Amino acid sequence: MKDHAPLYIPTYDDVIRAHERIAPHIHRTPVLTSSFIDGMAGASLFFKCENFQKAGAFKVRGACNAVFGLDDEKAATGVATHSSGNHALSLSYAAGRRGIPCHVVMPRTAPQAKKDAVRGYGGEITECDPSTSSREAVFADVEARTGAEFVHPYNDWRVIAGQGTCARELNDQIRDLDAVIAPIGGGGMVSGTCLTLSSLAPHVEIYAAEPDQADDAYRSFKAGHIIADDAPDTVADGLKVPLKDLTWHFVSSNVTDILTVSEAEIVEAMKLIWKRMKIVMEPSSAVPLAAVLKNREVFAGKRVGVIVTGGNVDLDRLPWMTA
Amino acid sequence: MKDHAPLYIPTYDDVIRAHERIAPHIHRTPVLTSSFIDGMAGASLFFKCENFQKAGAFKVRGACNAVFGLDDEKAATGVATHSSGNHALSLSYAAGRRGIPCHVVMPRTAPQAKKDAVRGYGGEITECDPSTSSREAVFADVEARTGAEFVHPYNDWRVIAGQGTCARELNDQIRDLDAVIAPIGGGGMVSGTCLTLSSLAPHVEIYAAEPDQADDAYRSFKAGHIIADDAPDTVADGLKVPLKDLTWHFVSSNVTDILTVSEAEIVEAMKLIWKRMKIVMEPSSAVPLAAVLKNREVFAGKRVGVIVTGGNVDLDRLPWMTA
Repeated sequence: MKDHAPLYIPTYDDVIRAHERIAPHIHRTPVLTSSFIDGMAGASLFFKCENFQKAGAFKVRGACNAVFGLDDEKAATGVATHSSGNHALSLSYAAGRRGIPCHVVMPRTAPQAKKDAVRGYGGEITECDPSTSSREAVFADVEARTGAEFVHPYNDWRVIAGQGTCARELNDQIRDLDAVIAPIGGGGMVSGTCLTLSSLAPHVEIYAAEPDQADDAYRSFKAGHIIADDAPDTVADGLKVPLKDLTWHFVSSNVTDILTVSEAEIVEAMKLIWKRMKIVMEPSSAVPLAAVLKNREVFAGKRVGVIVTGGNVDLDRLPWMTA
Repeated sequence: MKDHAPLYIPTYDDVIRAHERIAPHIHRTPVLTSSFIDGMAGASLFFKCENFQKAGAFKVRGACNAVFGLDDEKAATGVATHSSGNHALSLSYAAGRRGIPCHVVMPRTAPQAKKDAVRGYGGEITECDPSTSSREAVFADVEARTGAEFVHPYNDWRVIAGQGTCARELNDQIRDLDAVIAPIGGGGMVSGTCLTLSSLAPHVEIYAAEPDQADDAYRSFKAGHIIADDAPDTVADGLKVPLKDLTWHFVSSNVTDILTVSEAEIVEAMKLIWKRMKIVMEPSSAVPLAAVLKNREVFAGKRVGVIVTGGNVDLDRLPWMTA
């Protein structure tokens, strides 16, 4: 696995190349505003709507960069990953666009809708038991059998360079931002944002927002080294994964602060966005707005980019149905 | 009431003047597409997203045109209407922007959220009993007491000219449309669309879409005269009202056909749009897509504008929660 390769730190040139490579396969997503929410926040918020992205999430940027960056010989054997979330969808989408195989290892307990969506994009699923040991064993087997290229959901420089194209668009769409805030799970989007803005607009503050109930990045940031949570549980299910060495590099070097919010604050912010902005987004994507509303003094009067990371939500299981 | 004034038929010049008048107070809403839904429909669909409009619906166009078209003396006494839906919100918004009173007669049984929203925009509510006789008596009293200008939700030439600005934007945003489809209740949006397109692009077919369970416009269209439903019941609660003389003029003169759909088809189309396009819209706004999917042969290969009329939905009472 690439986890054991020497750590290559991508540069802004990698982001530019990624952007050229993936442009035919992604949307340049719109930036939306809400005067009502601005009034609540006491700041000017610019929502970068990756919920409108292909495959429904920003992850398609990194996945496309990895897939379309492969040489033809390597591409022919396909790509592989383990994920039950947006990365699996996105890698399947990217591989489908290139016409190469995509192998996804997913727990057999993953929602049928997710499995259907991966298969809908042409991904081939190998099921594992819902444990880390089973996932690793099954994945190693798939990798050995197929020779497919492993594309990690976030701890991969190609993926991070791809995610960096989002902040590049945002910086082009909205001038004079004072800050950008994004949710943090494994740190792929935050790392890409750091990579781009530290080069393009180094004065822009970068905040990461995280659930209280999955606050490993917050604790890592305060401690100065990676701390992994043991089985975090949050409605923001995209944010349960821990930082890894490459994302830790960016988070520890470029992030201004990490802000945490409660489950109730996440659901309230999610509902507020749906109600006022009329857009469908995931619980994870509401975490930044929840953090802005909880920390008004940090953002007062500022122009703040807010990354809305994705819109793949189960409409039959909205968090306020059970909250 | 203006219902008894001689019938003035607005012209496209009225739409142009309306557009100049209301431009500072409305959004030029975006047009979104979905390759997935296009594939299902076998047509190219262009969704004109009035769910992103100020006050959450297209109704603000007509309301703003009526409010900002008043001379100062008339405006000083304010405007009035009876509505428990988007027109009440929109008129309150428009009046608030002009700084004049807005009197809204609403049944005391209307949802608290609607009342709060009207008051949030500065509207003053007078409650009536949930019957036509009570509404008319209470409204007559409000009108006599305040001298406010009545703005009917749709049977008013100023309102229709305002709604016509939506199709004017759409025709500017998307070239070479073959058809436009909009939901029909009282017929304000459809009339405005007819008014604009019959002048700007008379070759474009205009379809109206209606719930089976509130198919008075369909039956009127087939019969050649207005037929009002007796207490229609549909999840598309914006579409329960009947045609009136002015909207009948446009519907009978310019509409190509009226297509009806079942409740289940409406809910399915609504969920499809939420899931695939990641936008929040009302049940009424899903009726056109339901009609397109049900009548593929009518729209096959065509470029079709679909008016997404509004996004004011109760997130705690989504139709598939009980369906």
